Amino acid sequence: MKPAEGRQRVVIEDVRPQVDSGRFPAKRVVGERFVVTAAVFGDGHDVVAARLVYRKQGERAWRSEPMLPLGNDIWSGSFVVESEGSYQYSVEGWVDDFATWLRDFKKRSDAGQDLSLAWQSGALLVEKASRRAKKGDAKRLREAMVEFRARGESREPSGEASQGVPAADVIALMERCPDLRFGSRYKPDLELEVDRERAGFSAWYELFPRSTSPVEGRHGTFKDAEAWLPYIAGMGFDVLYLPPIHPIGTSFRKGPNNAVEAAPGDPGSPWAIGSAEGGHTAIHPELGTLKDFHHLVAKAKEAGMEIALDIAFQCSPDHPWVSEHPAWFRHRPDGSIQYAENPPKKYQDIYPLDFESEEWRSLWDELRDVFLYWAQQGVSIFRVDNPHTKAFAFWEWVIPEVKKHAPDAVFLAEAFTRPHVMYGLAKRGFSQSYTYFTWRTGKEELMEYFTELSQTEVKEFFRPNVWPNTPDILHESLQNGGRASFMFRVILAATLSPNYGIYGPAYELGEQVPIREGSEEYLHSEKYQLRSWDREAPHSIAPLIARLNQIRRSNAALRNLTSLRFHGTDNEFLICYSKRSDDGKNVLLMVVNLDPLRTQSGWTQLDLKELGVAEQGSFTVRDLLHEAEYVWSGARNYIELAPGSKPAHIFELVSWNAEEAEQPGSDQQRSKYDD
Amino acid sequence: MKPAEGRQRVVIEDVRPQVDSGRFPAKRVVGERFVVTAAVFGDGHDVVAARLVYRKQGERAWRSEPMLPLGNDIWSGSFVVESEGSYQYSVEGWVDDFATWLRDFKKRSDAGQDLSLAWQSGALLVEKASRRAKKGDAKRLREAMVEFRARGESREPSGEASQGVPAADVIALMERCPDLRFGSRYKPDLELEVDRERAGFSAWYELFPRSTSPVEGRHGTFKDAEAWLPYIAGMGFDVLYLPPIHPIGTSFRKGPNNAVEAAPGDPGSPWAIGSAEGGHTAIHPELGTLKDFHHLVAKAKEAGMEIALDIAFQCSPDHPWVSEHPAWFRHRPDGSIQYAENPPKKYQDIYPLDFESEEWRSLWDELRDVFLYWAQQGVSIFRVDNPHTKAFAFWEWVIPEVKKHAPDAVFLAEAFTRPHVMYGLAKRGFSQSYTYFTWRTGKEELMEYFTELSQTEVKEFFRPNVWPNTPDILHESLQNGGRASFMFRVILAATLSPNYGIYGPAYELGEQVPIREGSEEYLHSEKYQLRSWDREAPHSIAPLIARLNQIRRSNAALRNLTSLRFHGTDNEFLICYSKRSDDGKNVLLMVVNLDPLRTQSGWTQLDLKELGVAEQGSFTVRDLLHEAEYVWSGARNYIELAPGSKPAHIFELVSWNAEEAEQPGSDQQRSKYDD
Repeated sequence: MKPAEGRQRVVIEDVRPQVDSGRFPAKRVVGERFVVTAAVFGDGHDVVAARLVYRKQGERAWRSEPMLPLGNDIWSGSFVVESEGSYQYSVEGWVDDFATWLRDFKKRSDAGQDLSLAWQSGALLVEKASRRAKKGDAKRLREAMVEFRARGESREPSGEASQGVPAADVIALMERCPDLRFGSRYKPDLELEVDRERAGFSAWYELFPRSTSPVEGRHGTFKDAEAWLPYIAGMGFDVLYLPPIHPIGTSFRKGPNNAVEAAPGDPGSPWAIGSAEGGHTAIHPELGTLKDFHHLVAKAKEAGMEIALDIAFQCSPDHPWVSEHPAWFRHRPDGSIQYAENPPKKYQDIYPLDFESEEWRSLWDELRDVFLYWAQQGVSIFRVDNPHTKAFAFWEWVIPEVKKHAPDAVFLAEAFTRPHVMYGLAKRGFSQSYTYFTWRTGKEELMEYFTELSQTEVKEFFRPNVWPNTPDILHESLQNGGRASFMFRVILAATLSPNYGIYGPAYELGEQVPIREGSEEYLHSEKYQLRSWDREAPHSIAPLIARLNQIRRSNAALRNLTSLRFHGTDNEFLICYSKRSDDGKNVLLMVVNLDPLRTQSGWTQLDLKELGVAEQGSFTVRDLLHEAEYVWSGARNYIELAPGSKPAHIFELVSWNAEEAEQPGSDQQRSKYDD
Repeated sequence: MKPAEGRQRVVIEDVRPQVDSGRFPAKRVVGERFVVTAAVFGDGHDVVAARLVYRKQGERAWRSEPMLPLGNDIWSGSFVVESEGSYQYSVEGWVDDFATWLRDFKKRSDAGQDLSLAWQSGALLVEKASRRAKKGDAKRLREAMVEFRARGESREPSGEASQGVPAADVIALMERCPDLRFGSRYKPDLELEVDRERAGFSAWYELFPRSTSPVEGRHGTFKDAEAWLPYIAGMGFDVLYLPPIHPIGTSFRKGPNNAVEAAPGDPGSPWAIGSAEGGHTAIHPELGTLKDFHHLVAKAKEAGMEIALDIAFQCSPDHPWVSEHPAWFRHRPDGSIQYAENPPKKYQDIYPLDFESEEWRSLWDELRDVFLYWAQQGVSIFRVDNPHTKAFAFWEWVIPEVKKHAPDAVFLAEAFTRPHVMYGLAKRGFSQSYTYFTWRTGKEELMEYFTELSQTEVKEFFRPNVWPNTPDILHESLQNGGRASFMFRVILAATLSPNYGIYGPAYELGEQVPIREGSEEYLHSEKYQLRSWDREAPHSIAPLIARLNQIRRSNAALRNLTSLRFHGTDNEFLICYSKRSDDGKNVLLMVVNLDPLRTQSGWTQLDLKELGVAEQGSFTVRDLLHEAEYVWSGARNYIELAPGSKPAHIFELVSWNAEEAEQPGSDQQRSKYDD
């Protein structure tokens, strides 16, 4: 069957970004420039034109931005996203008769051919455009038409009255009045999800409030936690993340160091959620009241921080849901409820929810309501525990549902599992995701992983949030690397990724003893017992962390992930990478010593083009960590880094001759009317 | 809004092949194994299962083949395509409760845990399956259920009566009765276009019938061309391609060597189609009658060859369409019809068709009817001239339209233009496409280009047909390389690509003089004048070509493109590559000297794994071009090739120790029930 209109001669393909053929939205944060590219081409030799069209959810009219050719039939256009929410975008293309005419006109003119027929063809195009144009434009175009005709009717020999070129303002007007009758549009419309800026740039600090009491052995409270706010804000963090704050079950409660049986008075794991005192919307009485919680939220806000809650959808056997909604759990042939298992291991203190429940609809509603309840209490950041053990379809539904009511909600996925699963969750709406960073310690594996995260299509939907430690993961390199390893790992985290976090105070105080050799579990883990921390300890690396967060705030280069580029060094322990701000004005160059035990030295092999530095001449770099300046020249420069005292350079380029070659993106400045 | 069914816990992504998100079909030929991969995974730790589903157009029921995991959540399944036509395919995935149960059962059993509850859970699964199963299977499953229950009810202490494993036949039965209630299916269904084998494996010979007369200066006829059939078939070609055979216009007819004015008696260009004697469905009277054409088609068939016609949708000013359908052409402001132009160049002998015509519908119908007319005359291969100057939408419509009536139609796109345009035409249905091979002469550029064609997604829709020369392109390397360059270029063409062709007899006779220095046009081109050829000339490389085509026919390795792998050599003029048959039994290794002037020698750096050869031990290679055998060992072997006498090796591996490591594809043999 023939198409309704067979004269749409322009093809639009390969529109990017595009996540799973448009099945999922791309992601950006407010203020970012959203760049769209597409292959746009037609048959034959006519000039084509293209534009990016977009609108925000709820808008009826489409806005448009011109697209310009980058070469090889690829076109690019962009706009700055103004506010959070969903956008749609697509690309339109059409044969540009006037541009074709103008190109051929110039060639004919250069060859000294008679132009009278050409002027007449041009007059027809201008006349048609005058009918499409707005009033004022139409008048000017009609004048141009008359002029074109006059030149076309001149019967003088070639090279005389028919010479000349159309006026620049007429060319510009014609560009503004494209003939879209046979225009093509890419199908389907694609989606863009825009989050607030914090979703893309954040520094997290994880704190167990129950360990914040000034009196050792006493259960800490929200009130006690408030006393920590100046310290945490002073280090420059902007998200304070609390493990679950709900009542803790007593059935099968775990004792210190994950002991199978708890002694009386053992506090249990905050992840064994629910008791007679309530479930996911209740507060553990020993932490305080809802009012205390509101107070903490308000105080944190005053200190420039948001509270993030841990949402762990699982239940202790004492959770109210167990008796109120038995259908939400799986039952064994003997009628008992199926506890969590990884045979032969049994986790009898945890009942997973059954996402194949007959009553999945009411389960989904209840889980959504947990988010909404906390959103009403002033929480808009949710760290979701093990989302990969809940149905993907649930996340795809619940995240937009929550955002309907709480548009500024941010979701961090705590899924440490296989890549497809982690990326699958991110596609379905998680704003940020934990990563493999915790286990990537070698130079090659760091470069490979962060290249995947920042340079492949993964960057369109997966926002890494990198953690050198968590309450579950004390990596071997921290166990054995001493204070120096805590220093360089947090430097990597804070500069490789715009989103990062630490589980403190274990981190800044260098807590490094595992429960046993070969384990990543902490000895005396806060997951199972109260701890008391001396935040004034002299060995604390809090000052380094404070400086890092200061550098992050004052250098726009560290706000994005996609400008990350690795540079060479001739030493396997020296990793070197750069970032630049969107406007190219702020350029940082990091060199980190990955060896916690020995001083390492070597030579850089800088990609000067990526840095925007001219091949010739010198440039000045200022070390923001150590307040020193160096004058460098060329790609090879000497580096020496000592663990502990000088684990890394964070260089700002402060004076340099800009490279004369094209800047990235400058192609876009070219007009489509250029040859 | 919630989905209709929220319990579909398996995600299916990244189904491949997939051309432009399923907008266009993938392509295969009859007899090929069609392999589909997909990412398939679920939440949590349950075992998932997947299958490939497919059906041929017109079939109601879907067939299925099991998919098996390749690792990293990627699954693979396949089927052999039986007949030409359109297929649909998709992937289904589901949580496999029984496989999950069996995995956990084994772990519990290994740990010596009590299994009574496990047997009871298993009994429930077997019981449910018995309700889904066919009669005979159901009976066995009910028996198994009874046995499972009995074991589950045994109250003896762990490790006694409850031990044992389910019977193998029960496991197999359970695999045959999957529980698909909450199964997922990839959307949308994807398409596969299956052509006959010739679309994927062909050797073309282009011949101007008017130059086949035994009498020099006399216009050749179809009858004369018949006398050439034994010669061409003797060289092993299976497609005889004729330039347009239609009446040639007289207005603005071009003379020899593209002279602007023809002298009386000059035959003109066959591409200036149409005169008072007819257009695209007429035969140029000097070639013969329709009956003569039928006779030629039949004789060619007897000789094992098909006739391919050149379909060039453009008109001489004398074409009947010009007066009958003036609306199909573009008009200039002075009322005249727009001839072809590339300003300042004018091609006044050619009127292009206007695909923006108001009457595009009747134009499309008429052009379709041209194909159908020739299909009725026994032609099923069409070489389409400059398809990129006609609307893409037209091709997307017309090719399936023609195939409806002539399912064995094969279309070769003659578009020498930008990559997106060439690939865009292939996606819209062209069975084969001309390539840049003609201009790729260096080792690196050949390797890069053929890697793109054979290893990237391009292979799914673009079937290269590579030509060392055409009537329009006498490449500089042939002009300057002498006979040796004609030899190695055709060896490359015939062994790199399953589809190739030559424009003869200019090729085998080494026609190498351009119209002027720097031009790719032939001097005394057959496009504008009659030629006479001495096919018995002693310098002819016809014997080499005959041997090449013989090797192609008897070595299945040369039938596919995707097994192409390049191997290293330490000499920039020695290019080395291998191909293997789908079953891995036929392995060829080519080494070609790209220097037409000097003997080149060097050492190979073979990828033994790709060849399927063990690292240790020796292997024998037989040179099919020179009937010699060599015993080689390891990756490094000495090569010496002399232009003219021994321009290349085409080695067949005749005896070798198969590599012990995994064969490509052997992963697929793994059962999903393996750990």
